[in-house]
Amino acid sequence: MTIPLFFFIFILIVSLSSESRHLPHYRIRNNNNNNNNNNNNYLGKQQKYTYEMRYFQQTLDHFSFHDLPSFQQRYLINTDHWVGPNSPILLYCGNEGDIEWFAVNTGFVWEIAPTFGAMIIFPEHRYYGESLPFGSRDEAYKNASTLAYLTSEQAIADFAVLITDLKRNLSAQASPVILFGGSYGGMLAAWMRIKYPHIAIGALASSAPILQFDDIVPLDTFYDIVSNDFRRESTSCFETIKKSWGIITSESQKPNGLDRLAKTFHLCGKLNKSDDLFDWLESAYSFLAMVDYPYPSDFLMPLPAYPIKEVCKVIDTYFDGSSILERIFKGVSVYYNYTGETECFDLDDDPHGMSGWDWQACTEMVMPMSSNRNSSMFWEWDYNFTSYAKNCWDQFRVIPRPNWITTEYGGHNYKSVLKTFGSNIIFSNGLLDPWSGGSVLENISESIVALVTEKGAHHLDLRAATADDPDWLLEQRASEVKIIQGWIADYYKKGKAVFSM
Amino acid sequence: MTIPLFFFIFILIVSLSSESRHLPHYRIRNNNNNNNNNNNNYLGKQQKYTYEMRYFQQTLDHFSFHDLPSFQQRYLINTDHWVGPNSPILLYCGNEGDIEWFAVNTGFVWEIAPTFGAMIIFPEHRYYGESLPFGSRDEAYKNASTLAYLTSEQAIADFAVLITDLKRNLSAQASPVILFGGSYGGMLAAWMRIKYPHIAIGALASSAPILQFDDIVPLDTFYDIVSNDFRRESTSCFETIKKSWGIITSESQKPNGLDRLAKTFHLCGKLNKSDDLFDWLESAYSFLAMVDYPYPSDFLMPLPAYPIKEVCKVIDTYFDGSSILERIFKGVSVYYNYTGETECFDLDDDPHGMSGWDWQACTEMVMPMSSNRNSSMFWEWDYNFTSYAKNCWDQFRVIPRPNWITTEYGGHNYKSVLKTFGSNIIFSNGLLDPWSGGSVLENISESIVALVTEKGAHHLDLRAATADDPDWLLEQRASEVKIIQGWIADYYKKGKAVFSM
Repeated sequence: MTIPLFFFIFILIVSLSSESRHLPHYRIRNNNNNNNNNNNNYLGKQQKYTYEMRYFQQTLDHFSFHDLPSFQQRYLINTDHWVGPNSPILLYCGNEGDIEWFAVNTGFVWEIAPTFGAMIIFPEHRYYGESLPFGSRDEAYKNASTLAYLTSEQAIADFAVLITDLKRNLSAQASPVILFGGSYGGMLAAWMRIKYPHIAIGALASSAPILQFDDIVPLDTFYDIVSNDFRRESTSCFETIKKSWGIITSESQKPNGLDRLAKTFHLCGKLNKSDDLFDWLESAYSFLAMVDYPYPSDFLMPLPAYPIKEVCKVIDTYFDGSSILERIFKGVSVYYNYTGETECFDLDDDPHGMSGWDWQACTEMVMPMSSNRNSSMFWEWDYNFTSYAKNCWDQFRVIPRPNWITTEYGGHNYKSVLKTFGSNIIFSNGLLDPWSGGSVLENISESIVALVTEKGAHHLDLRAATADDPDWLLEQRASEVKIIQGWIADYYKKGKAVFSM
Repeated sequence: MTIPLFFFIFILIVSLSSESRHLPHYRIRNNNNNNNNNNNNYLGKQQKYTYEMRYFQQTLDHFSFHDLPSFQQRYLINTDHWVGPNSPILLYCGNEGDIEWFAVNTGFVWEIAPTFGAMIIFPEHRYYGESLPFGSRDEAYKNASTLAYLTSEQAIADFAVLITDLKRNLSAQASPVILFGGSYGGMLAAWMRIKYPHIAIGALASSAPILQFDDIVPLDTFYDIVSNDFRRESTSCFETIKKSWGIITSESQKPNGLDRLAKTFHLCGKLNKSDDLFDWLESAYSFLAMVDYPYPSDFLMPLPAYPIKEVCKVIDTYFDGSSILERIFKGVSVYYNYTGETECFDLDDDPHGMSGWDWQACTEMVMPMSSNRNSSMFWEWDYNFTSYAKNCWDQFRVIPRPNWITTEYGGHNYKSVLKTFGSNIIFSNGLLDPWSGGSVLENISESIVALVTEKGAHHLDLRAATADDPDWLLEQRASEVKIIQGWIADYYKKGKAVFSM
């Protein structure tokens, strides 16, 4: 059987076409490509939250006035704990996937709603899940003309229009709105707070790499953090991984080398080039760093607590005399096959490459990355916009705008801008998460604060509470609740000035 | 000869089609509809500022990724006083017309540039002047599909992209940018400061009616202010104008009444319906209120100082026994024919009605207005969105989005939002200006301030200094310079944090 591919957060793929070798870009693998079994899977496992599913007739292009068809934006709503008009609304900024999956994986919002007497809204991001323009996924993803409206600005405007309309219909214009989001959703939450301060009074942006653009942070930050996560567990593990790339390359160049590699790594099919294997391994290491959670989880895959520790244990202690590649395979099997049910692996999980995140990465979400031989356990590569852009042209017939995000949302001078202009944003991060390198890790002002945990991973704080949560996580969540309570109290105090829309 | 029609600021027109009688909307009359003589006229008269004219290859749609042609955005630039990188940039947000005309009518920016050692930039607003997408005005204005990209969001993004690129090319990333704008340009300046705080450190928004949307201000505010401007000069003048509408209506219903009206008002052509005359008169009164400047001017028309006083003097003191309509004609002749050179008047100045402002008013710039019998000197009418929208459909095949501007930029709760979120905006207004009713007239915070003059009119502060400037105007301008100096000093103080982009 092939490995289950079912997750939504950024997946880093090293694109390995001969023209753009070692060009990092992002790919989302989402359930739209999968069958309904998967879809039922996660709902079956985690359906502990109840919500009404509604649809809103949404404008396709907020910033121009073509005669375009509107589309049905899906949103989930729960008013069980809402005390009524004036009471808070917690809005999760849907990101690149099915909104139900985000809803069930964002337990924090459900758990704090009663404390706030709050309504919960999970609007879906356009072009994902069921919120598909032009009537179907096939039509929406047909070409660059139909994909054109899949941008962050349009998505944020969707949220603004939806919540404004909803509040008007509920006579809840005075209800303060708090935004939540993780990963790309966290970026949307922070950006929406900055761009629409009249609509939301604050935002919790978890693991939101809003600085991972242009050259704001060093381009090798992401892979350095992944590498450090491994080195931190075991220097020999780090060194073994570091050596493996050269061995794979030299093995692949030998007669029947690719076949032997396919066998070593238990691939279901043929290995056409070593780059495909690089890609598969790099994905595993990067994801392990993102989900290096302190308890067993099955967010992306079923995994043990602190899975990197487990991977390294296997790599370091596999039987005496085992080769480096045998150790590597056994190690990544902790990630790809923790249950032991998988017999062989399929590297080519997204044959069409037409996912929504691919499009977003090829238009405005250009996040440059490189890998540095001195500090990284990966092979070395430089960021090359020319080949990145060529890849996008080949795939979508679109030209990326690499400087647009920082022009639209800022970034380079974020400290002084946010300090003198913004308010009420929490940037939460765990330092194990490689995306933390592109996020805000210092307090900016009294009301724009960074909550950083040394041992946290990718938007861990947004996940449901578990019995195994360490104290530092409980403290982080308690701080978040307290800060949000402060925003709301402040709003009500000032808010004789009614927050009407 | 017909009256010279050559001005750019909002023109209020009462649309008088039978379906949408007394529906106020806006029309811009700009020199693109006129011949080159007019174009040379204003440059000839006022060419005291020197600038280089440049063109920037601009993205047509910033928020979506179609494969669209770029266009050449024109901008004027002067670096005579610029001390170099790090020194300020004064950027005037071009509004609905030819940028050269705004440049020569915004003397204030030119006059203060040496004080600041500043560069001056006047970027032209897309779809106006020479900044025409699709290669020509005819193509750009062909239909709703080509006009689609004429929106305020796109225009502000143009400014953001242009200035970011320009600063990068000049290695002037650290130069603080101050925005200026009058009328719609003032709205753009305020909105750009709010939406792009990382690009501009402050904005002077002169006569910017950012609250003239939805029901934020009473709908009869505009016409009440016009009416009060007349009543303030003379109650009998106000009463005479107020009576005139009924007389015109009853005269028009008599046999040959329209012909007699045409003769009384010295029209060049036939009068088809009394509404056309209403429209023409209403325009004169509204504009007189806007340009009720304290010195002789020729911004819209050659006019004496405090022209409303002059109009009312004529209406009140025309020869004994003259009829009300004769007095009215003589009164508005002060506006339409101060030089006495016009022999007859043409009411239909914009036969195509395809101006850019018409499009903007029919898409997002929906500014509802009514006229109230109790307080207004105009005839009574209510705001009716249905007929407004029908008019837009008939004219452009477009459906207005009446709540979009407040969703995108805020408005209803502007005091609390700006107070807790914004900084560094001056809202300057003169209370004679009917647009002041939709603007910000109170200080919001220490750094978002209202500079209000009792006797000022439409963006008077932005005009060049004259020997006749009253003390209160000198004081207003001095305050503006002082506040801007404060912003810049503050920026340099903090700005070890480099304002790079």
